[in-house]
Amino acid sequence: MTPARLEAFSDGVLAIIITIMVLELKVPHGADLAAIRPLVPVFLTYVLSFLYVGIYWNNHHHLLKTVRQVNGSTMWANLHLLFWLSLFPFATGWMGENHAAPLPTAFYGAVLLLAGIAYYILQSLIVRQHGPDSRLAAALGRDLKGRLSPVLYAAAIPLSFLNPWLANAVYVFVALMWLVPDRRLVTVLSE
Amino acid sequence: MTPARLEAFSDGVLAIIITIMVLELKVPHGADLAAIRPLVPVFLTYVLSFLYVGIYWNNHHHLLKTVRQVNGSTMWANLHLLFWLSLFPFATGWMGENHAAPLPTAFYGAVLLLAGIAYYILQSLIVRQHGPDSRLAAALGRDLKGRLSPVLYAAAIPLSFLNPWLANAVYVFVALMWLVPDRRLVTVLSE
Amino acid sequence: MTPARLEAFSDGVLAIIITIMVLELKVPHGADLAAIRPLVPVFLTYVLSFLYVGIYWNNHHHLLKTVRQVNGSTMWANLHLLFWLSLFPFATGWMGENHAAPLPTAFYGAVLLLAGIAYYILQSLIVRQHGPDSRLAAALGRDLKGRLSPVLYAAAIPLSFLNPWLANAVYVFVALMWLVPDRRLVTVLSE
Amino acid sequence: MTPARLEAFSDGVLAIIITIMVLELKVPHGADLAAIRPLVPVFLTYVLSFLYVGIYWNNHHHLLKTVRQVNGSTMWANLHLLFWLSLFPFATGWMGENHAAPLPTAFYGAVLLLAGIAYYILQSLIVRQHGPDSRLAAALGRDLKGRLSPVLYAAAIPLSFLNPWLANAVYVFVALMWLVPDRRLVTVLSE
Repeated sequence: MTPARLEAFSDGVLAIIITIMVLELKVPHGADLAAIRPLVPVFLTYVLSFLYVGIYWNNHHHLLKTVRQVNGSTMWANLHLLFWLSLFPFATGWMGENHAAPLPTAFYGAVLLLAGIAYYILQSLIVRQHGPDSRLAAALGRDLKGRLSPVLYAAAIPLSFLNPWLANAVYVFVALMWLVPDRRLVTVLSE
Repeated sequence: MTPARLEAFSDGVLAIIITIMVLELKVPHGADLAAIRPLVPVFLTYVLSFLYVGIYWNNHHHLLKTVRQVNGSTMWANLHLLFWLSLFPFATGWMGENHAAPLPTAFYGAVLLLAGIAYYILQSLIVRQHGPDSRLAAALGRDLKGRLSPVLYAAAIPLSFLNPWLANAVYVFVALMWLVPDRRLVTVLSE
Repeated sequence: MTPARLEAFSDGVLAIIITIMVLELKVPHGADLAAIRPLVPVFLTYVLSFLYVGIYWNNHHHLLKTVRQVNGSTMWANLHLLFWLSLFPFATGWMGENHAAPLPTAFYGAVLLLAGIAYYILQSLIVRQHGPDSRLAAALGRDLKGRLSPVLYAAAIPLSFLNPWLANAVYVFVALMWLVPDRRLVTVLSE
Repeated sequence: MTPARLEAFSDGVLAIIITIMVLELKVPHGADLAAIRPLVPVFLTYVLSFLYVGIYWNNHHHLLKTVRQVNGSTMWANLHLLFWLSLFPFATGWMGENHAAPLPTAFYGAVLLLAGIAYYILQSLIVRQHGPDSRLAAALGRDLKGRLSPVLYAAAIPLSFLNPWLANAVYVFVALMWLVPDRRLVTVLSE
């Protein structure tokens, strides 16, 4: 299998995930502000999840660009990642509709964590396949963001039961950490 | 990242948006004319949104054809555009189900405006990247339609609260302005 | 615009249409035969619509293979075809849920007719663009199936109010006419 | 038609099927464990179906890689396979929501069986087209897994009415048989 086809299939799945998430924004029956107010947290969660899928799409592309040949384990590690990403619409809808109640917020963090681990497995398989001196290994370097993210997700899960808004702040922070051009934040974090 | 991949991903998202919009046309339970009559405004709004997504797809294609290299900011400006376009099914369903009530009509205009601004940002980034003497800058010229559209959307938002049908007429007018082959209308408008 | 991109976008839309149609097959709450029996007509309508989208996909591919350059009118004629095809899930769900009641059956025929006309417009534009001596014009020949289909759809619409099952028989007949390898039926019909 | 286009269209349909299956995981209204507990069987069925679509995607890719030219019958055999795969979301939702009740479990097996038969037909057509000495025929060898799977599905259908959990165990076993790298299990089974 060529990386091009793995990428095309993954792109298709990611395009569908990012688009069907919006279906959780159910059209309200009323036509006034009162009808749309309960949708505000659903909308904000949608924005957050949209950012995450965008970040995954971007990183996934850079990861696959370094791959020369796809074997069975890469293929299944990739499907494993897509599996956890496919739960984003559900996790988004559940947290959004319940205004960041503790359990849905913890669940959202768990899905982020499992997707992060799946990405890490996929990346490790590709690094191992191409050797520690490969372009990918060099590009990753110490991979601070990749290592810090799962730690933060894991911390946010118990935090959801103490203060779900703080857990949400962690999710937003991690998303921004990936959005902000690399140099600045990573330099700060690695000092 | 190559423009081809950015385009393939955007095409995938646009193809899904244009298709799931039709899910807002809920299958009625009855089998007579009375059952289908309330769907008429939903249908008309669907036609309008279909035209808008078609116009965006077409313009987006011409825009990306001029791009040689995609960098991080172009990538995120493109996702930003897709984000607002992903709200079309919701905005379409809300305005359609409420027979063009003021608030949903204003909301529809706001989504059009924000998508228009996102498109303008993407276009400006690409022009800046390729220089003022590039093929794109020449093709855009004074870009009358691109400048006039956001002004009209912005005017239609307060207009929705005075007369929602007039606001809808503005949305239809802007769509036709893009549909009608360039020369005629633009010449009229630029005199 | 290259035909390849028009085809990729159309393929995306067709793949989504053919797949979301199945969402009209709503998962029943019960777990016995009584729960699934009302779904039988929905299922049969789904099979019929699946065949039609398959036929359109196949014919559309052969049509675009002959195109060298896509201009604005071809692009919009293609979107016009996709518009009517996008109503298949709605028409399928409405006819299926109402066990082929007269009005939904006529509506299904109207959508088939309008999609057929849109296909004819697209084909005519392409033939005109490439000249009467082109490969496409030769391949079409007298285009019996293409001319007969709209006539049959148009006849089935009033027939739906007299006997909806006969109208459905017409829809099945037209689908089979396209499915069965060309030679046999066309020869019969052209005698 | 080139195999590349058949593959791209099939990939699109498979990507949509694998993603809309998750829509059967309806977002619950409550925010506690009691709200999410009834979703556990739906989730497990989703995992199983995700694996099956992943296996089909993988095998389908290897199958099409051997094809040089696509003719009409291959095209329709492929659509026939996609048809049965498109019923996965429905079968998954029905079995999941009814906690593996007999009839939905048997129905799930029937869809697996019919998809398996459709795959077998497609494969046989391609083998016949390329001759018994082709790369595909050699790669398939005695095709033990391909022959055993339909037998197991067919056995699981009546088994569903005696013990649906055993039938589910069969579905899981067949999925694992395809997941586990070929050599081991096949050697065991072929002794």
